[in-house]
Amino acid sequence: MAKLQWGMIGGGEGSQIGPAHRLGALADGLFDFTAGALDHRPEAGREYGQRLGIAADRSYGDWKEMLEGEKKRGDDAIDLVTVATPNSTHFEITKAFLEAGFNVLCEKPMTVTVEEGEEIVKIVEKTGKICAVNYCYTAYPMVRQARAMVANGEIGNVRCVVTEFSHGHHGDATDAENPRVRWRYDPAMAGVSGQFADCGIHALNMATFICNDEVEKLSADFASCIPSRELEDDAMVNFRMSKGTVGRLWTSSVAIGRQHGFVIQVFGETGGLKWFSEQPNQLIYTPVGGRTQIIEKGEGGLYPEAERLQRVGIAHPEGFPLAVANIYCDIAAAIRGEERKDLPTAAAGARSMAAVHYSVASAKNGGEWVDARPPMFR
Amino acid sequence: MAKLQWGMIGGGEGSQIGPAHRLGALADGLFDFTAGALDHRPEAGREYGQRLGIAADRSYGDWKEMLEGEKKRGDDAIDLVTVATPNSTHFEITKAFLEAGFNVLCEKPMTVTVEEGEEIVKIVEKTGKICAVNYCYTAYPMVRQARAMVANGEIGNVRCVVTEFSHGHHGDATDAENPRVRWRYDPAMAGVSGQFADCGIHALNMATFICNDEVEKLSADFASCIPSRELEDDAMVNFRMSKGTVGRLWTSSVAIGRQHGFVIQVFGETGGLKWFSEQPNQLIYTPVGGRTQIIEKGEGGLYPEAERLQRVGIAHPEGFPLAVANIYCDIAAAIRGEERKDLPTAAAGARSMAAVHYSVASAKNGGEWVDARPPMFR
Amino acid sequence: MAKLQWGMIGGGEGSQIGPAHRLGALADGLFDFTAGALDHRPEAGREYGQRLGIAADRSYGDWKEMLEGEKKRGDDAIDLVTVATPNSTHFEITKAFLEAGFNVLCEKPMTVTVEEGEEIVKIVEKTGKICAVNYCYTAYPMVRQARAMVANGEIGNVRCVVTEFSHGHHGDATDAENPRVRWRYDPAMAGVSGQFADCGIHALNMATFICNDEVEKLSADFASCIPSRELEDDAMVNFRMSKGTVGRLWTSSVAIGRQHGFVIQVFGETGGLKWFSEQPNQLIYTPVGGRTQIIEKGEGGLYPEAERLQRVGIAHPEGFPLAVANIYCDIAAAIRGEERKDLPTAAAGARSMAAVHYSVASAKNGGEWVDARPPMFR
Amino acid sequence: MAKLQWGMIGGGEGSQIGPAHRLGALADGLFDFTAGALDHRPEAGREYGQRLGIAADRSYGDWKEMLEGEKKRGDDAIDLVTVATPNSTHFEITKAFLEAGFNVLCEKPMTVTVEEGEEIVKIVEKTGKICAVNYCYTAYPMVRQARAMVANGEIGNVRCVVTEFSHGHHGDATDAENPRVRWRYDPAMAGVSGQFADCGIHALNMATFICNDEVEKLSADFASCIPSRELEDDAMVNFRMSKGTVGRLWTSSVAIGRQHGFVIQVFGETGGLKWFSEQPNQLIYTPVGGRTQIIEKGEGGLYPEAERLQRVGIAHPEGFPLAVANIYCDIAAAIRGEERKDLPTAAAGARSMAAVHYSVASAKNGGEWVDARPPMFR
Repeated sequence: MAKLQWGMIGGGEGSQIGPAHRLGALADGLFDFTAGALDHRPEAGREYGQRLGIAADRSYGDWKEMLEGEKKRGDDAIDLVTVATPNSTHFEITKAFLEAGFNVLCEKPMTVTVEEGEEIVKIVEKTGKICAVNYCYTAYPMVRQARAMVANGEIGNVRCVVTEFSHGHHGDATDAENPRVRWRYDPAMAGVSGQFADCGIHALNMATFICNDEVEKLSADFASCIPSRELEDDAMVNFRMSKGTVGRLWTSSVAIGRQHGFVIQVFGETGGLKWFSEQPNQLIYTPVGGRTQIIEKGEGGLYPEAERLQRVGIAHPEGFPLAVANIYCDIAAAIRGEERKDLPTAAAGARSMAAVHYSVASAKNGGEWVDARPPMFR
Repeated sequence: MAKLQWGMIGGGEGSQIGPAHRLGALADGLFDFTAGALDHRPEAGREYGQRLGIAADRSYGDWKEMLEGEKKRGDDAIDLVTVATPNSTHFEITKAFLEAGFNVLCEKPMTVTVEEGEEIVKIVEKTGKICAVNYCYTAYPMVRQARAMVANGEIGNVRCVVTEFSHGHHGDATDAENPRVRWRYDPAMAGVSGQFADCGIHALNMATFICNDEVEKLSADFASCIPSRELEDDAMVNFRMSKGTVGRLWTSSVAIGRQHGFVIQVFGETGGLKWFSEQPNQLIYTPVGGRTQIIEKGEGGLYPEAERLQRVGIAHPEGFPLAVANIYCDIAAAIRGEERKDLPTAAAGARSMAAVHYSVASAKNGGEWVDARPPMFR
Repeated sequence: MAKLQWGMIGGGEGSQIGPAHRLGALADGLFDFTAGALDHRPEAGREYGQRLGIAADRSYGDWKEMLEGEKKRGDDAIDLVTVATPNSTHFEITKAFLEAGFNVLCEKPMTVTVEEGEEIVKIVEKTGKICAVNYCYTAYPMVRQARAMVANGEIGNVRCVVTEFSHGHHGDATDAENPRVRWRYDPAMAGVSGQFADCGIHALNMATFICNDEVEKLSADFASCIPSRELEDDAMVNFRMSKGTVGRLWTSSVAIGRQHGFVIQVFGETGGLKWFSEQPNQLIYTPVGGRTQIIEKGEGGLYPEAERLQRVGIAHPEGFPLAVANIYCDIAAAIRGEERKDLPTAAAGARSMAAVHYSVASAKNGGEWVDARPPMFR
Repeated sequence: MAKLQWGMIGGGEGSQIGPAHRLGALADGLFDFTAGALDHRPEAGREYGQRLGIAADRSYGDWKEMLEGEKKRGDDAIDLVTVATPNSTHFEITKAFLEAGFNVLCEKPMTVTVEEGEEIVKIVEKTGKICAVNYCYTAYPMVRQARAMVANGEIGNVRCVVTEFSHGHHGDATDAENPRVRWRYDPAMAGVSGQFADCGIHALNMATFICNDEVEKLSADFASCIPSRELEDDAMVNFRMSKGTVGRLWTSSVAIGRQHGFVIQVFGETGGLKWFSEQPNQLIYTPVGGRTQIIEKGEGGLYPEAERLQRVGIAHPEGFPLAVANIYCDIAAAIRGEERKDLPTAAAGARSMAAVHYSVASAKNGGEWVDARPPMFR
């Protein structure tokens, strides 16, 4: 099976996200890294691309050049482009590549506005191209196991989903003016939301992913625990899903002592599940009236959706970079025409960004309950 | 030092709460169990009291008889009465004993209405008698350590307090009509609130206790995850405290897999704390920018407020019954005239019950933010 | 049911063990504390006893005076005496009280020599009196559950038992000459063994208790990690039990970072168990080929041996002092004539002390395998 | 920087070890997979190699063919060969490639006999080629941090190291004749040792790695808990290191409930460390007299030896495959001429295999203490 061709926009030298995507894309030998526009400084990008082994004529100076260049290559162009640029540019680049017939993996948030999100969804429908959003936590084997257990009725109808994504790495007020921290709470750079758009959105998407359901309405409470911040660094969102599930989502960046702090608990009629991103290889399961059990990655009898994403045996931990790699595995399969229902879609990207927007509005209106869905999905 | 005399109302044979109070009161040899009206069936109560070693003439048939009997004894009467009867009777009994000059330890909730709570506060002010509420979780050594750390500025001003008290023991819909479960969600028996009044109230009080602050306003979202229930079995309450602290409180009785599930996290400007009722002998502390540390009950250098409540050495666990016993130790000291600022007061009882009431109202009004304080404290 | 009369020898003011026994004996209202010789200084002991509420004529100056005094009281004497004196005196006092017809709870180690241990066993046989040894960890509900599971074949024949009791509280060489630490490693005061006699003996007894089996032979490796110590502060003992079970026991007092560090794992043909003294309310169970489960104190369906020792509901932790109290409950029942097979016996005391002695010999002989049993049990 | 050329012997289709090595070698883009003899069936190996993207003329039928083929290529040959064949062939292949001037990464155990191990050490000295052994657990960032902390005196001289590698995956006697399990306990296929050679050897090597010391003498106790097994499935080894450190090592494959079960604790004069392979991103550290702290992968201020092996930020877990990848990173650097003192050497491979052999002898002689070192290192 020939390797697919992969390109990346953004993820330049010194970024955190570039290496994660490269490792994810290359880990399983499914892709060759054949094109890139890696830096907003054209020369730096071209030079870095070549250092990473990309041919000189495909080490582009910017995304437009790359789009033109790859289009001209016809069948010998990239099969997938990853968009890992600043948030405000995701929409424009993703749209352009999709419309030119390329498959896209877009970093979250897929867009900055609700309208843009809807537009991407429509373009995907029209073009039939793949547009995945990098909600990579959903690709841990034990998250897929959780989703499969819910889908197969192992915990009955889901009554309540409780999730949090709270860390303390922005909790030092003396560091708040550090530019690497500051921009996240500045509307000029981060848009309408700080911590919720950055981390909470993962938790929100995860709730819909595991429950295979959508958030319908919500009520939010936002706070800037460090008062100099215009945008929230702590948020609580209550929601309801379309099948009636009650949702609770807390996200914070001032929770000193929590490191990554992404947890999800799903409580159904006949059982409960708990998963924690810092120990991602275990899924805690309790049947109603029974004892809590530890489901281990690698144990016998897991659902195929989980099993096929495991690389090493039971209790050999697999971590974050391989969750990203799992997203690439699924995309590769989808490109080759296999069905991959677990891949995070443009619709998921649009819905979660809409929920951020409407949470902001709800919080401003004293926690008023509002519709959480993009208009097109109402 | 002569022992004090202790009596109990309620806590009859087969109850869970009776043995916990007896163990708590007697564990340290500070009290003798000399009077009781232990059962709503007068004969059963008298007989059981005598079996427990109470003299026949002080094994009373009901609380009124006990009040009269003890009043007549003058100096040889009980020094403390514990009220462990059904919730709806707490007010009447507590009021009567306080007004007759007795010290009272009342089970939570102290009263059913806000007005009753205010009345008890006033009676305490007038009589000068002790009225403690059995918020016994506040008496764990490591909770007292947390409170002392906050008071001493070890984590700076508290930005955010996040607490949950969620279990799954009422999560089985097939058991929901079991009378032992059912009454908690029936307004006729439980009043205005189900799970929040039962468990959430502990979490709410704990937040105020550790932060040494009061809840000023709140916004609530209630749900009956088992639809046949009139009262909530899952609730989220956002609140603000008087010093600006943001509060998040989740309580549930359908969280299958959580056993007791009482956790509190306190995030300040310069550090964070975490305490979990199921492993109560550790307090998790992280200084901003530093490593997470485990503070152990029994280690050197704890605050005196924690140290004096420890009975055995480091890493010898101490559990729930001794937390109750610590409440009794503090009451004994207070009766003897020592100052005990950590003892949960009638004001705390009144404030937390008011918060329950106003949460119900907020939840009914779509999460509207409301004043959480009893009118007398506004 | 009238209370039993209880007396204590040792456990004077300022000791750690005195309060633990008083709490244990009094917690359930089964005993009255009616006699004592609490201090090696007669006046201090008499005075302290009276302060604790013992009548003046039963606040004795030493154990011999107490023995005479109580003997004279006939039916109105103590029903049980606890021996909580320095180790070297356990034998003499225990023997004297047993021979005078009293029931005894002796602190561990029951005796200092193997011969003394055998003598106590014979006296118990002859007199029919109760002589329990305070292996109090065996009285945690979840330890009793483990023993019952093994007895009922839930994990099949036990192949291997692995236990450790390792802390780091004597790990500071700069504190090694502190008299409170030093005596433990000085043969003149501690006898033949340091850490193994102090902590390892609990682990060894626990292995026999849960497996309901006896240690038959052993091979030991002792080390003085702090070189100034004559006796060992770290020991490893391999052993075999009479039914063929392989045993591994590690004990250390220089394991900096471990607090109490008492763990036992039992591996059978069809399952494994794990219990940890610092989280004593859970028992971890894995059926062969199945998932690890958490058995909670208080859950439904526990064995009666565990269930009857629980005082509060599921996930309300119960700690060390109540394990001690459970020993007193069992003794009280045994005194009243009920059968209590789970109570640690004089034979257990003699066997575990013999294992200490023979471990010392094995370690001196390069780990030679030796018979671990007192001669009378060979 | 041009990629290095990498080849593998063994690791054919369906093996567990092949994918782990491929992922490890390719994850960071340091190597191209250009040659292989992947299967003991020549045709299957050639075909599989080509499917994995190896050129037809370098998809070899066996290792001898590969050795000849690569030798002929001169400068365009592989830079590194991984030997992932059955244990009994490691020596022959490793020796041949080293002598032909290739660098080798050999799976553990490096050889089957002590003499072979010594011979490899000598060949490495003579040829100056790299021969690393895949003790991949040593390449976790937090293990490197532990080693650096010890080297920098952060816990003082090491008094005691306690390690275990115990799982329960061979604990089912009804599955013992399953060929995939059976061979490990059959001397004809596994050599002198079962579980100790398979897993214990990792723990033993880890002890020497973190302490930067060597095992000097040992005393062992072996057991076949499943009696049909000729080789041990449970072993305890006590040892002493050259600087006086006391060692304790337990390994078992019948520890039902333990999954991977590789733990190491290092106790020094001024602190203790604990690391657990199932949560490899944390290192638990306790300074003497201080509180236990959690050191997190990714936190600020780690030693460079740890820091350079991290790929993603704090609390983003990294797992087993990336530990393997770290070995490849270090080898690549070493091939390029950088010093890599943390890479597991042929000497480490020889020493640990010798310790297995001498443990077998000790266990047969009743735990006799024996020299643990290969004769060449005495």
